[in-house]
Amino acid sequence: MEVGVGIIGLGNVGLGTLQILVENSKSIQEKLGFPLTLKAVCSRNVQQKELPFRDGAVRETTDWHELTSDPEIDIIVELIGGTATAAHIIESALRQGKSVVTANKELLALRGAEFWSLANQNGVNLAMEASVAGGIPIHTVLREGIAGDRVIELYGILNGTSNFILTEIEKSSAAFESVVAEAQQLGYAEADPSADVDGLDARSKLAILAALAFGEKLTPADIYTEGIRRIIPVDFQYAHQLKHTIRLLCLARQSEEGLLLSVRPSLIPQSAILAHVTGAYNAIWIRGAYGEDTFYYGRGAGSKPTGVAVVSDLMRVAREIRFGSPARVSPFAHERLGEYKPLPIPTQKLPYYLRFRVEDKAGIIATLATILAKHHIGIDAVLQLPREDWRDLPFVVTTEPAKEQSIRDAILEIRGADFLVEAPFAMPMERGF
Amino acid sequence: MEVGVGIIGLGNVGLGTLQILVENSKSIQEKLGFPLTLKAVCSRNVQQKELPFRDGAVRETTDWHELTSDPEIDIIVELIGGTATAAHIIESALRQGKSVVTANKELLALRGAEFWSLANQNGVNLAMEASVAGGIPIHTVLREGIAGDRVIELYGILNGTSNFILTEIEKSSAAFESVVAEAQQLGYAEADPSADVDGLDARSKLAILAALAFGEKLTPADIYTEGIRRIIPVDFQYAHQLKHTIRLLCLARQSEEGLLLSVRPSLIPQSAILAHVTGAYNAIWIRGAYGEDTFYYGRGAGSKPTGVAVVSDLMRVAREIRFGSPARVSPFAHERLGEYKPLPIPTQKLPYYLRFRVEDKAGIIATLATILAKHHIGIDAVLQLPREDWRDLPFVVTTEPAKEQSIRDAILEIRGADFLVEAPFAMPMERGF
Repeated sequence: MEVGVGIIGLGNVGLGTLQILVENSKSIQEKLGFPLTLKAVCSRNVQQKELPFRDGAVRETTDWHELTSDPEIDIIVELIGGTATAAHIIESALRQGKSVVTANKELLALRGAEFWSLANQNGVNLAMEASVAGGIPIHTVLREGIAGDRVIELYGILNGTSNFILTEIEKSSAAFESVVAEAQQLGYAEADPSADVDGLDARSKLAILAALAFGEKLTPADIYTEGIRRIIPVDFQYAHQLKHTIRLLCLARQSEEGLLLSVRPSLIPQSAILAHVTGAYNAIWIRGAYGEDTFYYGRGAGSKPTGVAVVSDLMRVAREIRFGSPARVSPFAHERLGEYKPLPIPTQKLPYYLRFRVEDKAGIIATLATILAKHHIGIDAVLQLPREDWRDLPFVVTTEPAKEQSIRDAILEIRGADFLVEAPFAMPMERGF
Repeated sequence: MEVGVGIIGLGNVGLGTLQILVENSKSIQEKLGFPLTLKAVCSRNVQQKELPFRDGAVRETTDWHELTSDPEIDIIVELIGGTATAAHIIESALRQGKSVVTANKELLALRGAEFWSLANQNGVNLAMEASVAGGIPIHTVLREGIAGDRVIELYGILNGTSNFILTEIEKSSAAFESVVAEAQQLGYAEADPSADVDGLDARSKLAILAALAFGEKLTPADIYTEGIRRIIPVDFQYAHQLKHTIRLLCLARQSEEGLLLSVRPSLIPQSAILAHVTGAYNAIWIRGAYGEDTFYYGRGAGSKPTGVAVVSDLMRVAREIRFGSPARVSPFAHERLGEYKPLPIPTQKLPYYLRFRVEDKAGIIATLATILAKHHIGIDAVLQLPREDWRDLPFVVTTEPAKEQSIRDAILEIRGADFLVEAPFAMPMERGF
């Protein structure tokens, strides 16, 4: 008995999914023991799409309702993105007893728990491997591969665009704006790059992963988020002096007090395997209470890598439909369990990297040191690259481990000083992996 | 409705599994939606074991037949290892309609296809995550996470003991024998280290992974295998000059001609993420036709990391028992499909690293160069470290890409020369990732 599939949305990922379904159909059927049959595709401009078939066996339509109400379709693949129509499609499909495979991180981060309730009420499945870290099967790993473990920490590089931008700045010392323009030309960055460079895309992904890993009710609003717009090439030179590099780090870290969640540019040691993740790649590093550290790496996006995630989800869901009940315990908690209460970021205690751009005046270090000391922040090092023009070259102070609240208070006080050319810039220095 | 579990074998991994089952029982039940209940444990000396319970609720026995015939037990965990009794246990369990979770790589590599047939005939499951790369959920990844992809190449570091030995030689320049003694003291190496240092353990693991990845009937005998006994500290110095390092590399590489399978010490570029795998860690790098490259890293062994693999398998199998048919399509092919025919290793074409230890005579390079040229092998570089004693310090020739058969023929001819102090040593130089 076959399992029928309908795909809504024929952008990059939709076309990649189609290609894999068509080219790999024999191998898919062999692995499953039954056929996975594409019944219909839907796109606003389906007639203009270059489809790998056009023989009439697969229905083409511009109206998604035709798919969610088609009795021959068991699984709806939602790949249109956004939070409006996509939500209607997912709801409609689940209510009509169809399982859903989606890549929609934004929607899942906001309403995952709600959709899972609906899926459970209707005895169907909701699969979302493609929503985080395209080619890396991290959902499968958390859901099944290390299900027996208890996750303590999770660090990720979850936005390929910002990682490409950071590693290009690192490599070429070009300015942020020109690297963004390059990323746009290469198709890595959108015309409006905000979702990527301001950390919002990464935040949605971290919200989903942290919910899976910790089983706590979490939303994007629980995650402290800061983008990469303030990174300048010289930050990498200082970071390298400190045997570190800089990445937009997504972290979820459990402590006795609660769960710390953040997306922010951070210094990470060059010895960490995460430091070797360059270009548009994604990676996730997990520490488990029993399994210790594991690390996962791959393409963060792209038509075919994300298509693999969609097709692999389709195979799993099809198998569950064919052989047994597809209902699963929701990986999203529906209420705060309190076990992993999100912690305010100012409670974090780490060494910090503080960058200052100042007017050339006497006594600046003395003033800074006095203010830091007043807030009980120990100085670890003061770094200054060889410079031609004092005004343009910032210097850096690294601190002993300090509470982020103290750092913020000190910076607020330093901002009152008359020698600053711009607001100080602070990044945590991670040492945890 | 609960699912009952019986564990046979209470060594390191058995005790790690018990600890996780006991400590994590609440979380396991929450994720599954039903309890996973330990019914009985079996070990030859069960009375001497330190168990995390001793309240009578879990039966303790020295006779495994009591477990395989117990109607309350749905899943048998086989953790005694070896190929004799373990085979009886697995057969007996499957025939009596019980699913099996095992960490037994040696047995699976030899008889995996046969056990899968038996499991399918009896409508039960056979789970084996713990058999390869302890803490890395690589089976889950291949079976589900990237099931929609088609694997083209797979490279792994699959034996933690030999990786520990190699990276200790690299770090300290100590001789092989003294590092093996150190590994034995630390409990990383067995009293007889042959299975690890001769590549046999890695070979079993590669046989299983390649069968999963390529769906071809493969056995350990299809895999060219060479251990690390000939590696000397100076090899790392030469490798570093070439911006490479040396690892016991397991590879399965598909080409138009067939499937190349080998376990052997190899030079890998320092830029490869695999080069950063040190100590007792394992890692697997996969290139898929659609998903491109993904990389997986974690503990290769150990009581608790491998215990996580066992418990995660238990959860999956329990879920399938509880909610639907546990039968699955066998990942092992039962006959040669021919699609990925194993290729003889002499057909491999790569650059090679050739190490020579010679008497101090005139004309040695000329003789070597003549013989290599006769076999159509181009020389890429001749390396010689600064030396105090010519007799003791080998020199190295690296070649242009050449067929392994030509390298072997040339070495055979070179072995006739009167200036050799020992047989030349050849390693391939991988460039593929």
